[in-house]
Amino acid sequence: MHDIEILGNKEKGLEFIKQTEQKKFIFSLVISYTETSEIPGITMAGEHPDLIKFTGPADAEFIHYGYCRSISVIPMTPDGKPTPALLTKTALEAASIPSVVINAGSKVSPKLPFIDMGLDCGKNIGKEPALSLDDVGKAVEYGRIIGRFLGASTDCVIIGESIPGGTTTALGVLEGFGITGFVSSSMPKNPVNLKIQTVKDGLKRLRSKDPFEIISQLGDPMIPTIAGILSTASEISRVILAGGTQMAAVLAFAKSMGFDGKNTAIGTTSYVTEDNSANLVNMILQILDIPILVAKLKLAESKISGLNSYAEGFVKEGAGAGGASIGCMLKTGIDAKGLLDLTEKEYSKIT
Amino acid sequence: MHDIEILGNKEKGLEFIKQTEQKKFIFSLVISYTETSEIPGITMAGEHPDLIKFTGPADAEFIHYGYCRSISVIPMTPDGKPTPALLTKTALEAASIPSVVINAGSKVSPKLPFIDMGLDCGKNIGKEPALSLDDVGKAVEYGRIIGRFLGASTDCVIIGESIPGGTTTALGVLEGFGITGFVSSSMPKNPVNLKIQTVKDGLKRLRSKDPFEIISQLGDPMIPTIAGILSTASEISRVILAGGTQMAAVLAFAKSMGFDGKNTAIGTTSYVTEDNSANLVNMILQILDIPILVAKLKLAESKISGLNSYAEGFVKEGAGAGGASIGCMLKTGIDAKGLLDLTEKEYSKIT
Repeated sequence: MHDIEILGNKEKGLEFIKQTEQKKFIFSLVISYTETSEIPGITMAGEHPDLIKFTGPADAEFIHYGYCRSISVIPMTPDGKPTPALLTKTALEAASIPSVVINAGSKVSPKLPFIDMGLDCGKNIGKEPALSLDDVGKAVEYGRIIGRFLGASTDCVIIGESIPGGTTTALGVLEGFGITGFVSSSMPKNPVNLKIQTVKDGLKRLRSKDPFEIISQLGDPMIPTIAGILSTASEISRVILAGGTQMAAVLAFAKSMGFDGKNTAIGTTSYVTEDNSANLVNMILQILDIPILVAKLKLAESKISGLNSYAEGFVKEGAGAGGASIGCMLKTGIDAKGLLDLTEKEYSKIT
Repeated sequence: MHDIEILGNKEKGLEFIKQTEQKKFIFSLVISYTETSEIPGITMAGEHPDLIKFTGPADAEFIHYGYCRSISVIPMTPDGKPTPALLTKTALEAASIPSVVINAGSKVSPKLPFIDMGLDCGKNIGKEPALSLDDVGKAVEYGRIIGRFLGASTDCVIIGESIPGGTTTALGVLEGFGITGFVSSSMPKNPVNLKIQTVKDGLKRLRSKDPFEIISQLGDPMIPTIAGILSTASEISRVILAGGTQMAAVLAFAKSMGFDGKNTAIGTTSYVTEDNSANLVNMILQILDIPILVAKLKLAESKISGLNSYAEGFVKEGAGAGGASIGCMLKTGIDAKGLLDLTEKEYSKIT
């Protein structure tokens, strides 16, 4: 698979690829919300403050329908940079990978059937605890139930996320667990200082190194949900954690509950691993010795400037785009060029 | 499989069994609610009027946890007749069949993760329309999305239901579609006259024979939801409609939308097919020429009188018990005697 690069544990990565080629996949998108995203300048997900809360629902709807129902606008910036959900949809459709949406505290419900976690949205970690200890426990427990169901129903579960402001809460959780490294961002000029200040404000409230306390003070509802799904799904199937530094935060929390990395790989795009202001691979390897599968997408070769922008440091990843692309390549054998052609066709449908 | 009897189309039934033996199954329980259940004397699901609304959630929780979270009582009548969810749980656990709960208008949310349809509970069909035409459409559309996901994730989807008062709405829908036959009941003295009067009151409102109008006036949110799931899941996998006359109503509606019975069987218990006041087989065959798989359970041979009562005309079926038992027998090869032993062990855990 010359368009999937293996970073981290190469041997486990080769084994992972061998075991999942031409196999069955399920894609799950965990949508969530943190009020941390409302801090001015911290995220570009959502053009306007009032639209931020639609980020997760819009991604979920786009993947299912090819358009958004909760908002009437086309999910791209005015200059034509599309949502990464475009890559996710293209990959899932090309490989006939079934997908399911999990609502872990989204502020708005998406207009499609979804698995409900019964969680409130996360609070602004710069000001107050993100969620109660009870809700951390509930997220893990319900996640474990979902993970058992998904893991028993396929050979490989891909788990993506869509949570505006989620890189800041991921940074908070990683700091809480003592993992160092900067967090990636959807913006080319990563607003690192603003994120660090927000996390510092949150760290002041931390009264112990208890993992549940760290998530409660600095996290968001997505992190314990995916950690729960991961812990049970990986017992009975392979798991691709589709995302960048948010998935590092998931791994750090899962490890604190006894997870050892079994059957699990990170799946992301080369635009994240090549991001200078973040260092995903080092962060992951500080936590667990697992493979990082990198989809070497060829968006720079596109004639469409909105797609080129991914290679120029905008967006880079999100809505499980990297993991879905890897799943598609593993299941069907398609290469990155073939995937680009399909992505351009999908792009032309929405413009 | 000498403990599974085939009624209806025997040839298709043998083929169905051959194609699903030792294969993968998923069980889905659709929980719902109709205010028709609040008509005094129409249902025995739920001892007390205030408890009726917990029937679906309690069944869902029992299947997942082995106990109920939303109510503190043990889910059985004071004289020891257990919920049919006991049979469902035993069968699913014995065969390691993954299960998922779908909330199609339950009045109360169950305390576990579930797929939410975003539907209100059904109204009393004796007094007013059950649900709006828009909600019938939404139930079908969302059901179709869920069916695609479930069908792509397994070899055979078992669909059960739990809706108190659901036999009356099923009767209403069957009457609306011109299917004749009496509807089964969870009570030994089937309160046929009360059901018929309720349906007659509803039929007065019916202004056309449009299928969506029939469901809107006389149905409940469960029927269009399962019809939607059935229509897409059966395109890519086998489907067992686990239940009695409610599933006949589902079939009648699905047929009106073009469903031809492909890859589908009814799965139920012999206590339903032997019920004199109902005639499931004839009803099904008036609709579609499909097989009816009957789990010949041996509850009459139990030393536990609460289990004997099933064979004496109480409860008989519910929460997908018959279909789950058939799935368990098909997947593992266990016989009815083996299943009875496991059921007795499960019974002793809750008493």
